[in-house]
Amino acid sequence: MKGMTVLRIGRRLVSTMVKRSPAKRVQSTTPSIWVEFTTLAAECKAVNLGQGFPDTPMPKFVAEKLKEVANQPERTDMHQYTRGYGNPKLVSVLGKLYSKLYGLPIDANNQIVVTVGAYLALYYAFLGWIDHGDEVIILEPAYDCYSPQVKFAGGTPVPVVMPLKKDASSSADYVLDAEAVRKAVTSKTKMIVLNNPHNPTGKLFSRAELEAVAKIAEEHDLIVIADEVYEWHVYEGKEMIRFASLPGMFDRTISIGSAGKAFSVTGWKLGWAIGPDHLLAPIKAVHQNCVFTCSTPTQHAVAEAMEDELKIMDDHPEKSYLRTGLSSELVAKRDRLTSMVREAGMTPIVPESGYFMMAGFKGYHGPFESDLSPDPLDFRFVRWLCREKKLATIPPSAFYSPQFKKDNEHMVRLCFFKSDDTLSKAEAILKELKKEMSGGAN
Amino acid sequence: MKGMTVLRIGRRLVSTMVKRSPAKRVQSTTPSIWVEFTTLAAECKAVNLGQGFPDTPMPKFVAEKLKEVANQPERTDMHQYTRGYGNPKLVSVLGKLYSKLYGLPIDANNQIVVTVGAYLALYYAFLGWIDHGDEVIILEPAYDCYSPQVKFAGGTPVPVVMPLKKDASSSADYVLDAEAVRKAVTSKTKMIVLNNPHNPTGKLFSRAELEAVAKIAEEHDLIVIADEVYEWHVYEGKEMIRFASLPGMFDRTISIGSAGKAFSVTGWKLGWAIGPDHLLAPIKAVHQNCVFTCSTPTQHAVAEAMEDELKIMDDHPEKSYLRTGLSSELVAKRDRLTSMVREAGMTPIVPESGYFMMAGFKGYHGPFESDLSPDPLDFRFVRWLCREKKLATIPPSAFYSPQFKKDNEHMVRLCFFKSDDTLSKAEAILKELKKEMSGGAN
Repeated sequence: MKGMTVLRIGRRLVSTMVKRSPAKRVQSTTPSIWVEFTTLAAECKAVNLGQGFPDTPMPKFVAEKLKEVANQPERTDMHQYTRGYGNPKLVSVLGKLYSKLYGLPIDANNQIVVTVGAYLALYYAFLGWIDHGDEVIILEPAYDCYSPQVKFAGGTPVPVVMPLKKDASSSADYVLDAEAVRKAVTSKTKMIVLNNPHNPTGKLFSRAELEAVAKIAEEHDLIVIADEVYEWHVYEGKEMIRFASLPGMFDRTISIGSAGKAFSVTGWKLGWAIGPDHLLAPIKAVHQNCVFTCSTPTQHAVAEAMEDELKIMDDHPEKSYLRTGLSSELVAKRDRLTSMVREAGMTPIVPESGYFMMAGFKGYHGPFESDLSPDPLDFRFVRWLCREKKLATIPPSAFYSPQFKKDNEHMVRLCFFKSDDTLSKAEAILKELKKEMSGGAN
Repeated sequence: MKGMTVLRIGRRLVSTMVKRSPAKRVQSTTPSIWVEFTTLAAECKAVNLGQGFPDTPMPKFVAEKLKEVANQPERTDMHQYTRGYGNPKLVSVLGKLYSKLYGLPIDANNQIVVTVGAYLALYYAFLGWIDHGDEVIILEPAYDCYSPQVKFAGGTPVPVVMPLKKDASSSADYVLDAEAVRKAVTSKTKMIVLNNPHNPTGKLFSRAELEAVAKIAEEHDLIVIADEVYEWHVYEGKEMIRFASLPGMFDRTISIGSAGKAFSVTGWKLGWAIGPDHLLAPIKAVHQNCVFTCSTPTQHAVAEAMEDELKIMDDHPEKSYLRTGLSSELVAKRDRLTSMVREAGMTPIVPESGYFMMAGFKGYHGPFESDLSPDPLDFRFVRWLCREKKLATIPPSAFYSPQFKKDNEHMVRLCFFKSDDTLSKAEAILKELKKEMSGGAN
């Protein structure tokens, strides 16, 4: 716009640039890691095991539902404004589904709010419940939006680290330290965020761990945000225990789910919050001021796809995408990546759930170590790996608070929901990497 | 959930209901009028001239684009996460389009943010710029989300009424009172919201009026929110002047547009904010904490449709939906509704733009007048009309601040973007209504 400014100066002698300051709430916002690492991956044309999205085809039966919607331009119920708190077909099927999953009758018209992805549901939960000074306990490592969203709402994130056992090999080796959680509670604590299955580790919380959280929540009257977007990505018959299904917990839990994750269409950006009326009321108030209503065509398509799933998931689980198709596709990819990573001399922490794998690179030495950047080692390694080797990953220290980054800078996060072709390309890069790392080229 | 509470009480002797209070920011939120009147219309199975959405088929060429997207489930660029600030194809074509419309080079990668409808773009503008105590001037009548959104951001809405001339017959008879705007400015004023074409009146602001606003904005260093979502709904060759195209104004304007409105697919919920880098930076910060990225498939389809439009709109405007198709479809509906309303003994204010018509019902007398509700007369009339006559409309006093409702309670807002069938049904109801109103029943 520089040319325009000159032109304008010719017409009037003062600049018309606004000299006002933005609202205080945004002044401390820093760009998210996704901006840097997604841009870097694109610039380097890297093989992308970074950002968490499938590069495989989305399920055909879901695409067919969107096609049916596109084929009916005359249907106002498919293309015009729908009900603000969620398309009636969609909340109805979600009500049936989660009533089964929680073992409780969900009132679809009052206890569900459809959102633009789980991301917006989280935002609503914090904006609706957190005031200036309120504290929110976050188990770290933690998906990197929780803390900025809590701060945006005026709250204070209180991190509690889940320690990783020595010689860990499974995501179950990340353990919930219930005593540390209890110690972190103060009179200001209002909420705890529980991400299960867990990103980035792939940890699936055990019943004992969940009950420990429930006990603390009850003792201190805490609201629990149960971010369960990877609820269908669970391997080897392990049990996914939804927090709201624990005795008494529905009434203090805002459960968050995602159609983008369930049906492998992250770009459709549809999620939901489920909870008792009194917990959802503030969420509805924020929603009314924020987006008011979500995309109708995709809600319609997701509702239709979910209705089909609901019909088959109990009687013919072998035909169900959510019960069987998704996890069997993914477990093979997980196992392949595990071998590749091990073969490359890294230490995989095999995930029981989710579509990410943590992998240690402690034996690696290279130019990334002498990089002068003040950033943690994993940031420097990930940048080097992307620029020099064309493999994009994510540095997990991004998922820790500043004081814990130094102790957690020797891993990368890899996404394995990728096509065989992508995985083969990654394999070739990892083989080359191993040679260089063991050859001591530096 | 009552049954569950009993069950739970059986298991543990205390209720586990959270006893916390919601965040202060939501405690004064009241349900929007759309909740009441959309629900009422559905319950009464009324002929719906209320909420602003087309009940005609959406344009086929746009539906075809969505079908192409649905036909390609393997395309990650159509179904997975896209660029946070907007799909690259979409911002690119919007950049070209608005560069032409503003007569200024728009930098698509920095000066556009795609949002979930114009509604979210407005929210971002207020949350990004308004602090506690900041004042925002709103010309009334005003679309009913501005004021709650400003309050949600901590700001104070300052209403300035646009008076309607005596014996008014056109939306141009709503006039901007520049002196009143100037008087409303204080040291706390930070922003003015300008909705052009205007909802609910259909007013199209004249160049002189826009220049008066520009002068005040410049004198007091105000940010201008130019909500121009009805920019293509302009009749009889009248000129739509985009605020950002006025000399010097781009640098202080956040312009808001909508694919839902442009392509008559309100349910697709895609909009955008356009402005200089320094005005968009806070919007990007809110976006990063709020939805982060918008729906990919619909962005892709809108981008493709807009590319087609861009190719023909200058050289073959007669083939362009935006330049010709939309307004010629609508002007016929407007004229038809004008006759119907006049025939029924109401006073139409013929809109020069938009898809709403204000109509006075001063000559009407009926049971709605003696309704004991404390609400303004138009609320009582609209409820009666919906319940008793099965015709849904919107009471425009909802678009005024409390102190101005009493003077503006003798009109209804009617949406004319409706099928011939809907309009015929409305016509029959209006004919019956006239008989009853002139027959003095009651």
